[in-house]
Amino acid sequence: LREGKTTGGDKHLKKMAVRYSHDVTDYRLGCFVRLLFRWRGSVYKMVWPDMLMYILLYYIISFVYRFALPEDEKRVFEKISIHVSHFRNLIPISFVLGFYVSVIVTRWWGMYVSMPWPDTLAILLSNHVHGQGNSARLARVTVARYVNMGIVLTFTMVSPAVKAKFPGYQDLLDAGYLTKDEKSVLERLDRRSKQHKTYLPFLWACRIVDQAKREGMITDPIAQKTITDEIMRLRGCCGELLGWDDYNIPLVYTQVVTIAVYSFFLFSILGEQFLDPAQNYPNNIIDLYVPVFSLLQFFFYIGWLKVAESLINPFGEDDHDFEFVSLVTRHLEMTYLLADTQEREIPALVKDTFWE
Amino acid sequence: LREGKTTGGDKHLKKMAVRYSHDVTDYRLGCFVRLLFRWRGSVYKMVWPDMLMYILLYYIISFVYRFALPEDEKRVFEKISIHVSHFRNLIPISFVLGFYVSVIVTRWWGMYVSMPWPDTLAILLSNHVHGQGNSARLARVTVARYVNMGIVLTFTMVSPAVKAKFPGYQDLLDAGYLTKDEKSVLERLDRRSKQHKTYLPFLWACRIVDQAKREGMITDPIAQKTITDEIMRLRGCCGELLGWDDYNIPLVYTQVVTIAVYSFFLFSILGEQFLDPAQNYPNNIIDLYVPVFSLLQFFFYIGWLKVAESLINPFGEDDHDFEFVSLVTRHLEMTYLLADTQEREIPALVKDTFWE
Amino acid sequence: LREGKTTGGDKHLKKMAVRYSHDVTDYRLGCFVRLLFRWRGSVYKMVWPDMLMYILLYYIISFVYRFALPEDEKRVFEKISIHVSHFRNLIPISFVLGFYVSVIVTRWWGMYVSMPWPDTLAILLSNHVHGQGNSARLARVTVARYVNMGIVLTFTMVSPAVKAKFPGYQDLLDAGYLTKDEKSVLERLDRRSKQHKTYLPFLWACRIVDQAKREGMITDPIAQKTITDEIMRLRGCCGELLGWDDYNIPLVYTQVVTIAVYSFFLFSILGEQFLDPAQNYPNNIIDLYVPVFSLLQFFFYIGWLKVAESLINPFGEDDHDFEFVSLVTRHLEMTYLLADTQEREIPALVKDTFWE
Amino acid sequence: LREGKTTGGDKHLKKMAVRYSHDVTDYRLGCFVRLLFRWRGSVYKMVWPDMLMYILLYYIISFVYRFALPEDEKRVFEKISIHVSHFRNLIPISFVLGFYVSVIVTRWWGMYVSMPWPDTLAILLSNHVHGQGNSARLARVTVARYVNMGIVLTFTMVSPAVKAKFPGYQDLLDAGYLTKDEKSVLERLDRRSKQHKTYLPFLWACRIVDQAKREGMITDPIAQKTITDEIMRLRGCCGELLGWDDYNIPLVYTQVVTIAVYSFFLFSILGEQFLDPAQNYPNNIIDLYVPVFSLLQFFFYIGWLKVAESLINPFGEDDHDFEFVSLVTRHLEMTYLLADTQEREIPALVKDTFWE
Amino acid sequence: LREGKTTGGDKHLKKMAVRYSHDVTDYRLGCFVRLLFRWRGSVYKMVWPDMLMYILLYYIISFVYRFALPEDEKRVFEKISIHVSHFRNLIPISFVLGFYVSVIVTRWWGMYVSMPWPDTLAILLSNHVHGQGNSARLARVTVARYVNMGIVLTFTMVSPAVKAKFPGYQDLLDAGYLTKDEKSVLERLDRRSKQHKTYLPFLWACRIVDQAKREGMITDPIAQKTITDEIMRLRGCCGELLGWDDYNIPLVYTQVVTIAVYSFFLFSILGEQFLDPAQNYPNNIIDLYVPVFSLLQFFFYIGWLKVAESLINPFGEDDHDFEFVSLVTRHLEMTYLLADTQEREIPALVKDTFWE
Repeated sequence: LREGKTTGGDKHLKKMAVRYSHDVTDYRLGCFVRLLFRWRGSVYKMVWPDMLMYILLYYIISFVYRFALPEDEKRVFEKISIHVSHFRNLIPISFVLGFYVSVIVTRWWGMYVSMPWPDTLAILLSNHVHGQGNSARLARVTVARYVNMGIVLTFTMVSPAVKAKFPGYQDLLDAGYLTKDEKSVLERLDRRSKQHKTYLPFLWACRIVDQAKREGMITDPIAQKTITDEIMRLRGCCGELLGWDDYNIPLVYTQVVTIAVYSFFLFSILGEQFLDPAQNYPNNIIDLYVPVFSLLQFFFYIGWLKVAESLINPFGEDDHDFEFVSLVTRHLEMTYLLADTQEREIPALVKDTFWE
Repeated sequence: LREGKTTGGDKHLKKMAVRYSHDVTDYRLGCFVRLLFRWRGSVYKMVWPDMLMYILLYYIISFVYRFALPEDEKRVFEKISIHVSHFRNLIPISFVLGFYVSVIVTRWWGMYVSMPWPDTLAILLSNHVHGQGNSARLARVTVARYVNMGIVLTFTMVSPAVKAKFPGYQDLLDAGYLTKDEKSVLERLDRRSKQHKTYLPFLWACRIVDQAKREGMITDPIAQKTITDEIMRLRGCCGELLGWDDYNIPLVYTQVVTIAVYSFFLFSILGEQFLDPAQNYPNNIIDLYVPVFSLLQFFFYIGWLKVAESLINPFGEDDHDFEFVSLVTRHLEMTYLLADTQEREIPALVKDTFWE
Repeated sequence: LREGKTTGGDKHLKKMAVRYSHDVTDYRLGCFVRLLFRWRGSVYKMVWPDMLMYILLYYIISFVYRFALPEDEKRVFEKISIHVSHFRNLIPISFVLGFYVSVIVTRWWGMYVSMPWPDTLAILLSNHVHGQGNSARLARVTVARYVNMGIVLTFTMVSPAVKAKFPGYQDLLDAGYLTKDEKSVLERLDRRSKQHKTYLPFLWACRIVDQAKREGMITDPIAQKTITDEIMRLRGCCGELLGWDDYNIPLVYTQVVTIAVYSFFLFSILGEQFLDPAQNYPNNIIDLYVPVFSLLQFFFYIGWLKVAESLINPFGEDDHDFEFVSLVTRHLEMTYLLADTQEREIPALVKDTFWE
Repeated sequence: LREGKTTGGDKHLKKMAVRYSHDVTDYRLGCFVRLLFRWRGSVYKMVWPDMLMYILLYYIISFVYRFALPEDEKRVFEKISIHVSHFRNLIPISFVLGFYVSVIVTRWWGMYVSMPWPDTLAILLSNHVHGQGNSARLARVTVARYVNMGIVLTFTMVSPAVKAKFPGYQDLLDAGYLTKDEKSVLERLDRRSKQHKTYLPFLWACRIVDQAKREGMITDPIAQKTITDEIMRLRGCCGELLGWDDYNIPLVYTQVVTIAVYSFFLFSILGEQFLDPAQNYPNNIIDLYVPVFSLLQFFFYIGWLKVAESLINPFGEDDHDFEFVSLVTRHLEMTYLLADTQEREIPALVKDTFWE
Repeated sequence: LREGKTTGGDKHLKKMAVRYSHDVTDYRLGCFVRLLFRWRGSVYKMVWPDMLMYILLYYIISFVYRFALPEDEKRVFEKISIHVSHFRNLIPISFVLGFYVSVIVTRWWGMYVSMPWPDTLAILLSNHVHGQGNSARLARVTVARYVNMGIVLTFTMVSPAVKAKFPGYQDLLDAGYLTKDEKSVLERLDRRSKQHKTYLPFLWACRIVDQAKREGMITDPIAQKTITDEIMRLRGCCGELLGWDDYNIPLVYTQVVTIAVYSFFLFSILGEQFLDPAQNYPNNIIDLYVPVFSLLQFFFYIGWLKVAESLINPFGEDDHDFEFVSLVTRHLEMTYLLADTQEREIPALVKDTFWE
């Protein structure tokens, strides 16, 4: 049974991206505030390891200053601390973070938009490849399968998770994407050329459509064009995904931002120490032991950087990443649902309740 | 009577999004200023609960400081207040808010653009499905109904308000979107697969178009393609709406911004207290009792954040949300108005007044 | 004579949007500087009433402080002034203005791009609806008229100026857009449904195109599709215009910005007073009587806000608004010019000067 | 000889926009630094007149202060200077410049993208209008000429340089764009309507294509549609160019930015004077005679503003403007090169070196 | 053997753009941190020469101040240093860098999107040009070759690396892109017109498609249109590449930014010197000998500028540039792989494992 097989992958749907849209549909008092009490995909989950290390380093320095240093070295330390405190603000990290995260968010959505959805193709197949016989059904189902295969091959190139699930042709064969014949064709071509073979299934799909046209299952060239254009559009989506994967934000930009943020906080460990209030340094009038504002600032800037880290390559298995693994299953099931409609699943044309 | 039924939903049109375009069409003195005296959709309506809580907390602290603390603890409090006042500016919330709200506004408009409008389809149906007999009329009306059904099914997935109105197939049946036959088909498919069935009505609509072509009501494949393309475009809009709903701005970004703004004001309660002028602290030369600037600042920043809160998911029933409930009614009525035109509603071709 | 009638509206073309492109085509010394000496559409024209009120209030306070207050209340006033002067900078209005105006400018251009131009349709009609007889000419001219009617109906919904010119169907009838027959059809439909009837003329236009196809004036379905697609594109533009008009920038954003800017200057009236130099307050070493910088700052920020005010709804009759009234006239004349070309206005095909 | 004539305009190609892409293809030490030693299109070329005036004014004030003023007036001047120096930073010109220049750059590229390139049309003509006889050649060449004429007419409306080259129909006739017959048609229509006649040549071009279809030179309606669509696309580009030209950035925005920048520097002349170090004013500890930083700041801000000035209307003859004059020549030559290909310029179909 | 020849260029694929997407697929502790330990394409590799020069100059000044200057000149130097330190912050380079880099990043991705990928065309050729005989194969292969030739000719105009590989027609002939006949046609045309001949191969390709249609290898005009449209789309991509290359960011913008950044650091050499702590200048309480913060700031700002330098023209051979040379090889191989599919490489249509 086709359905049984494909819905077998349903458990993957459990692990989904973090969704909170429906918590913020309407504005209510504290609508955003309630979002703060979530762990999955939260800033806490991402920031705590860095935070822990920061706190550790901060208190090591603090203890050394308070208990280990002799008086005159304390004075030197205080001067260094004040010097650091004054100068570390020379780097406008909020600025560079704002622009950097803007670029990342734009790219992230561009990647989403590039994701291929074969639903339209499935409807077109169901609609334009006429006939309820086996050959028409075979054409519809095989085109759908080929396009799914092309999409899966693309996903294995960009998403380590999908690669882990389908490391080789044999696994695709086992999952039903490939037949033995097709596998041997792909392997023969792999020996002929080292270029990736992602686009071959799309070629095969077009060929079946062309054959269906010649055999009269597709009645006119316009319908053939509609289907072929849609297959090519899906191939284009796959090409775009590979492009996003190949040309990420230049490494140099990511490095500049990362170094700026982390060095800022490295110096913050020195500069944000509470100095002896008895020395009357400006802005050091009280000793609170817990550097509340430094921690808040750390939380804020590192959290902002984590926005970038979680979006820069959404092809993984992070909380915010696109769920390619479950998408693969979803596509397979949805295309069969639409492209392989039984005649009894098409309602008869009857007058509705609005008919006078 | 078809019109009677559909315009029955007209009362939904009452509850509309906040519109003020026509108040600002022309620049006049105080054109923006007059906008300040509105309550619906206003910043006051959104900010007052937070503001109330802020004022309450502020004066509790203020009273404790002024009347409850002994003199020496007052001095400690003053030091803490000055410390807080100095350091809480370390977090550039205006910056992060500016970038965050920019992203939200862009997405909000993207969502608007994704909304499906079936008007063009209705005109094409009226134009290309020839014949005034019952079968042609049935084809036109049913395609329009199916597309409306697909749109409503999508809306129930993204908008809680539409979901509340149509919680199940029975309600769609009662509202005239579904016939019994179609309902049983959908239920049979629900048992076969757990994927959402939003796209099935579009498939059915294409099928009717194809049948109309074969029966000669549509005369050429080009016209069929035009109609099918438009149905697919509407399906694409529905898919985009689901996409916007699934992948919102990462939770981590929203959390970082929310925490930054609210913690800023939490500390502001301490740092913005009027300290005893007699102590001659810098910038504390006068005691005004009412912290005008803190309140203004609160109003400003929280108001800015509320812009984001009100736009982040416009699929609800907020003052600024898209009115899906009335849109459903509007679409139904408009498509019937256009797709089910009577011959007597098409004016005869006569020479106009410009004819020489 | 057709031309006579349409060019009768030419006087509207006098009142045009402010154009200065041709003054800044080439960079010359003081090229932008020369733009400063213009009044129409200028910042002076927009800012002076606010400026006047600001100056008035400023000098009232100033006179009270200098001449009315006793010495000890002067000291209190000075403290308040210094307090205000220090704290009013807490709101970063330049930031919020920058982001807000960016959004407004983007939307303004989006609105321009949505404006329907029927020129391409007119050329297509002239080209694809063959025949110089009356019936072909009638088809061409009527399609052009219907599309113009649809555009005018849209304009009356978004532009108060066009609404004032054409308040009802009778006025459109008088202006030649409607025939009596068409007017009665529209009125009959108005009784049937409350939805706006803007899209009906586009439906009628498609119908005429379809009839022309069946009568052989349009020779192939491809040409029919080309014309129908263009009519649908124009309908889409009209729908977009309505969308821009319905969903403006959320009121809350506009209110936040307006309140921020105006409250900033309300406090500036107190904080920017010249205090008695004899009191030796910091930054108050001289009394210039005229607060040059406050006025400049006022001019600058309020001017920046006016950019937003003048662009937020360009559907009016401001100096910077789109000239819908003259556009209506222009569209009518241009479509007839192109769609109703006489055969003698098509040059014969002869060898040009480049022919060997 | 056709080529001879058109390449006669080649000298215009000499005066080209400033190109430096190929200097920065690869990153090398000082790659950007080397760009600093260029004059054409450089910031020096644009800034020096303003700079000169600034220096002149600065030293006039400086000399008056140092040598003309008596001691007590010197003290007053110093107070004014300190007051000005303190307050002129109230206007965040870097902010407004950043946003303003962003908008300008976006528009500038939008204008570039709107520029019509007839190359594709020429290829389509060469490909789809079959026949090597005179009539087919005449059709191809004339369509190409008409489209070029439409483009030139558009250019004369937006670019003063092209207007200067072709002030009237006679000049277009002399240049070979118009025949006498066409000129008289245009003149007759100019008497009929005051609307610009830019789109008429596109109409004529479509007519010739339609005639070629009826005469069998174009074999199928699909090919006709392809060519007509491309002609309409070029007309659309011309319409967009006119739109960019009509609706520039609102004058009020340009005025606000210009006034902000220039008034900033007007006050800088007072505020940046070196005051007598003997008076011990803060930040006035040394007298360098040359205000290095003010000059640098002037150079920087005015230079930034000049970016806007040079891009705000790229339809002129500036160093950074689009070269419409040479483009006209280029288009003419390129379209004839492609559309008027001789049969001997099409290589025969032979097996290449990769053939097994 | 075709494959042997084309994969011979495979060694070019070695030198690829810097990729790190797969290192950041999932968020892990220190995910960005690990990126810091890379050299290729890193900020270190780009910044170190400037950094070295900066350090050198800094210590020369430092040594002069500490050891060469007499005491009174030291005092003068200290005053100059403080003056410089105070005033060099007048130029907001973070601001201008943020906006400038934003523009550059947008353009860089626009260039990527403009890059032509002939894969879709190859699939269409394989699908729509029927027949396994030599003439059909020749048509498919030659169209693919012509389009590749057009792409290579474009690349030689924008990428010095490709120009170096194919300096003249002879090299293209040797590489198999050109036949002798085609070369002589191109040379004949070079004598006729100085315009670049990049678009001619696209014209030739269209001609072969047209011929294939007339000879019945392509069965319907729709298929011909599909292929021709795709060829024209690729030509459009090539035109866009030339456009990006011709109109870069205005030189004046690049100069302003470069001068601002470098002059900032030129003065930093004076202003960031450690002054004698014994003199009690503010913010000079300690002498650390190594100007840690200046170096960090230098690293940060110059690194940010290098982002721009590496992206402003990605047509070279930098670490971050598009790999045109290997792309040329890839395109050739991929198009032959897809367009020249053997019948035995098309799998037979068999029931898959999902078939009930």
